[in-house]
Amino acid sequence: MKLVAVGTVAFDSIETPFAKSEKVVGGAATYITLAASHFVDECGLISVVGDDFPTSTLDEMKARNIDLQGLEIKPGEKSFYWSGKYHYDFNTRDTLVTELNVLAGFNPVVPPSYKKTSFLMLGNLDPRIQLSVIAQFEERPHLIVMDTMNFWMDTAWDNLMLALKEVDVLTINDEEARQLTREYSLVKAARKIMEMGPQYVVIKKGEHGALLFHERSIFFSPALPMEEVADPTGAGDTFAGGFIGYLAKTHNTSFDNMKRAVIVGSAMASFACEKFGPQRLLELTQDEINERIEEFVELMDVEILIED
Amino acid sequence: MKLVAVGTVAFDSIETPFAKSEKVVGGAATYITLAASHFVDECGLISVVGDDFPTSTLDEMKARNIDLQGLEIKPGEKSFYWSGKYHYDFNTRDTLVTELNVLAGFNPVVPPSYKKTSFLMLGNLDPRIQLSVIAQFEERPHLIVMDTMNFWMDTAWDNLMLALKEVDVLTINDEEARQLTREYSLVKAARKIMEMGPQYVVIKKGEHGALLFHERSIFFSPALPMEEVADPTGAGDTFAGGFIGYLAKTHNTSFDNMKRAVIVGSAMASFACEKFGPQRLLELTQDEINERIEEFVELMDVEILIED
Repeated sequence: MKLVAVGTVAFDSIETPFAKSEKVVGGAATYITLAASHFVDECGLISVVGDDFPTSTLDEMKARNIDLQGLEIKPGEKSFYWSGKYHYDFNTRDTLVTELNVLAGFNPVVPPSYKKTSFLMLGNLDPRIQLSVIAQFEERPHLIVMDTMNFWMDTAWDNLMLALKEVDVLTINDEEARQLTREYSLVKAARKIMEMGPQYVVIKKGEHGALLFHERSIFFSPALPMEEVADPTGAGDTFAGGFIGYLAKTHNTSFDNMKRAVIVGSAMASFACEKFGPQRLLELTQDEINERIEEFVELMDVEILIED
Repeated sequence: MKLVAVGTVAFDSIETPFAKSEKVVGGAATYITLAASHFVDECGLISVVGDDFPTSTLDEMKARNIDLQGLEIKPGEKSFYWSGKYHYDFNTRDTLVTELNVLAGFNPVVPPSYKKTSFLMLGNLDPRIQLSVIAQFEERPHLIVMDTMNFWMDTAWDNLMLALKEVDVLTINDEEARQLTREYSLVKAARKIMEMGPQYVVIKKGEHGALLFHERSIFFSPALPMEEVADPTGAGDTFAGGFIGYLAKTHNTSFDNMKRAVIVGSAMASFACEKFGPQRLLELTQDEINERIEEFVELMDVEILIED
């Protein structure tokens, strides 16, 4: 398996300032694998759902070559459910409901066919679970990318620090990077995170773009200036899926290629915002993706001659 | 005169979350002309101060080839004074005190030697004053760039609309662009502003960079990720000064050159944040400016091959 992702597969109820959507399919691993599926031929998914999860969605995922051997379906149980409400700026939100359901007892098992994976994406989960997944691989994956959130900083600090030591790239949003490091400057925050383990840090700033840090180098990708945002839920996970999907496709983890991967991730994230749930990621064509990446290139295209 | 700027020359008292500075030199035209002076050999300034304004600062400005024929010094009167306090994010602030003083009766007179200017920068002022300055030129300047703020939207809407019809470029911050157009999306906001007059719109997002709009094209410049921000006061005006200074130096107002000017403006703005007041702009060397522009180029440097 070229790429494996672990994370939630779930239901979300989402309220934005302009619309509302009840119980759409969501979850970090759903967005990650759907985004990555546009770049790799096979992508393994490790997660758990209840028997309330629609088989039609699972069929759509299989049709996109997402391997579901790692997806446990627990009979008689309910899938993870999250409900949130976005503020007017679409960049901040309140959580209204979190029902762990099947996630409460989630003990991921890496299927034998996943055990020689080159690229591993650890979606936001309890760092204890992230660590247990890493430990199950026969060989350490070539690249491990991890996402996390403030909740684990508050409740699982020690395990979070252990997990950070095991990964190559951390993707994290700006407020969480500040909380993790107690540094307001994102430059200082990224430097501190790199001391915690990862050699690469991606700080996601939502509509304000993303920063990639490695050693003393910084690369910036804007977010696409959009006319309409339907729903930013899953944009960060879609970013991660596009990012690692592109790296896996090109099998190149140089800083220069990570910069490209940040652009690809940002392009994929812009699609995720166009509709509620992961719908847009299911419909997307290669031409649309190429066009969107081209828009990013134009957005950043400048040649400047420095003279005295 | 290649470039003329009109705006305030003033005193500011500034409080940030980390430091405080009493009555430092400030004012839009101070920052604009000091930034522009690194790109053009002569730059005329139109403003008014009281006799409390330090002649040492005026001497420093003259030493940078800023022409002060347009600066009225009113004996027995006090200079414009503003005091503000920044929030923890440095991107928002509260105004504590505004004392108009000499600015209350400001009736700018364009000196004869300025009347054939190619580049005109209208700093944030009552749009009635901005209009009166435009009207005094013998020939319409080749390029007119205007800055404004929410205060004039609240109190001088009709004159603001008249002024917008007369200018080529509007620089405005994101929240003000939203207020001016009642559009949340900056893409839609910029489009509406272009319908009001300017063919180019620069939306300044502070630490989140700047967007340049023209017809259907969009260009994005990041802000420099900084380890420390001392004081962002004047960063927007410094941006404008670097922007129009670079355009005047290169005498090229194509969209491609405006993109370069946005990078140069952003680079200059990053210097303005490093110290309280305009001090950093007085010390700057050409080498430092070139290095900073190079940092921006690296920050945005990506080559991506789009394939099917």
